[in-house]
Amino acid sequence: MPQAREQVIRLTRYKNALEKLKNTGLARVFSDNIADMLGLSAALVRKDFSQFGLSGHKRGGYRVDDLLAQINRLLGSEEPQHVIIVGCGKIGTALLNYTGFSRQRIRIVAGFDTNPAKLDPHAPIPILNVSQMPDVIASQNVRFAILAVPEAVAADLGETLIKLGIRGILNFTPMPLKETSGCVIHNINIALELENLIHLARFLIRPEKGEPGETRRTRA
Amino acid sequence: MPQAREQVIRLTRYKNALEKLKNTGLARVFSDNIADMLGLSAALVRKDFSQFGLSGHKRGGYRVDDLLAQINRLLGSEEPQHVIIVGCGKIGTALLNYTGFSRQRIRIVAGFDTNPAKLDPHAPIPILNVSQMPDVIASQNVRFAILAVPEAVAADLGETLIKLGIRGILNFTPMPLKETSGCVIHNINIALELENLIHLARFLIRPEKGEPGETRRTRA
Repeated sequence: MPQAREQVIRLTRYKNALEKLKNTGLARVFSDNIADMLGLSAALVRKDFSQFGLSGHKRGGYRVDDLLAQINRLLGSEEPQHVIIVGCGKIGTALLNYTGFSRQRIRIVAGFDTNPAKLDPHAPIPILNVSQMPDVIASQNVRFAILAVPEAVAADLGETLIKLGIRGILNFTPMPLKETSGCVIHNINIALELENLIHLARFLIRPEKGEPGETRRTRA
Repeated sequence: MPQAREQVIRLTRYKNALEKLKNTGLARVFSDNIADMLGLSAALVRKDFSQFGLSGHKRGGYRVDDLLAQINRLLGSEEPQHVIIVGCGKIGTALLNYTGFSRQRIRIVAGFDTNPAKLDPHAPIPILNVSQMPDVIASQNVRFAILAVPEAVAADLGETLIKLGIRGILNFTPMPLKETSGCVIHNINIALELENLIHLARFLIRPEKGEPGETRRTRA
C-alpha cells in the first residue's frame, strides 16, 4: 500500500496547487505546469490523473475549475471535517487556537483533558473532561483526533480513540503509535525531527567529516 | 543524496534504539535484534553499519556500549546543540516550553519576536527582539532554528537565518522553504499533515470508495 499512500498525498498537493492557480485567475492548466510547480515529472502527474480517473482534453490541457471539482469529489473535501484535540498542555492548547486549520476545511470541535483546572466547557472551542469523549465523538460525528498527551498515557489513549471509531490520529507524543487496519496514524515527534535535522546538517553540509560510505568505510 | 538522507535518519533511529537497550541493561546486540525493533531487514542494518564503519564481531554481534559510543562519535551528539525559536506566537511559545528536547541533547537558548508585549529578556529562556538575533547566534554558537512566524514573513526570515550561518531550520510555517547547499530545511505544515491524514483515511480505510487505479480507472 505504500505507493497508494504517496499517491494520495500527491493528490492533496495537486488540489492545493490548483487552488493557488484558481486564485490567480488562471483558467486552463497543463500537466507540465503542475509538474513544474511541485517539482514532479509531467509523466507522473499524467499517470496519477489517469489512475484517479481525472479527465481533461488530450492536447488542450485541463480546465482548472473542472479539475479541482473532480479532485474535491474524490477527496470528499466539500464539507469540513470535525477534529478533536486530546491533551490540552502546551502543544495541545497551541493547536486548539491554531488559525491555519480553517483554510483546509478542518474544524476543531473540542479539546479534552483530565486536569480540572484546564477544563473550560463554555469556551468557543470547549475543553472538556476526557470522560465526555465518547459522547462528543458520536454526537459530532468526529473521525479524526490530534493526540498531545504525556508520553506515559499516549498508547492507552490512542487505543481508546480507535475503539471510539476514530479513523486518523495525528500523534504529537514521543510515543510512536502503530497503524491498524481501521485507523491511519501519523507520528510527529518534534524533538526527533529536530535531532534528525541536526544530524542531517552534520552529514550533508560537511560531507568530508563523515560522508557515509566514503571516508569512514576504511575503518570497517 | 536522498539515499544518504534516509541513511542518516536511520542512524538516529539506531542510536535511540541502542539507548533504550542500554537502559534495560542489555550488553550485547545482533543486527537482527535492531532490525526487529525498527521494522527493518537485518541485511539493511548490516549494510548501514558497514558503510558508516561501525564495527563489531562477526559472529558475536556488537557490544551495546561500544556501538552506541561509535554512533555518537559519528553524529557528534556528545555536547548539546544550541537552538533558537524565531516567532513566539502560540506554536513558538509552546515549543519554547517543550520539555522533550533535553532528552535529545537540544538546548533552546532564546526565543525571538518583534512584538514588544512578547519580549521577556529575563525569563529562564529569554524572549528577545529579532534585532538581537545576529548577536545571539554568533555569541552562543547557534546553528539551528525553529521558525514559527506568520506565513507572510516566513520566506524573509528564513533567508536572514541562512545568512546568519544557521545550518538547519525546522519550519512550522505554512510557507515551504527551499533547501540550500548550506542549510537543511524540514517543513512541518501542521494543517497539511492533518489534511493528508484525512485523505489517507478516506482512501486506505474504505478502498471501495475510491481506490486509485481500480474503480475509478474506468472513468478516465
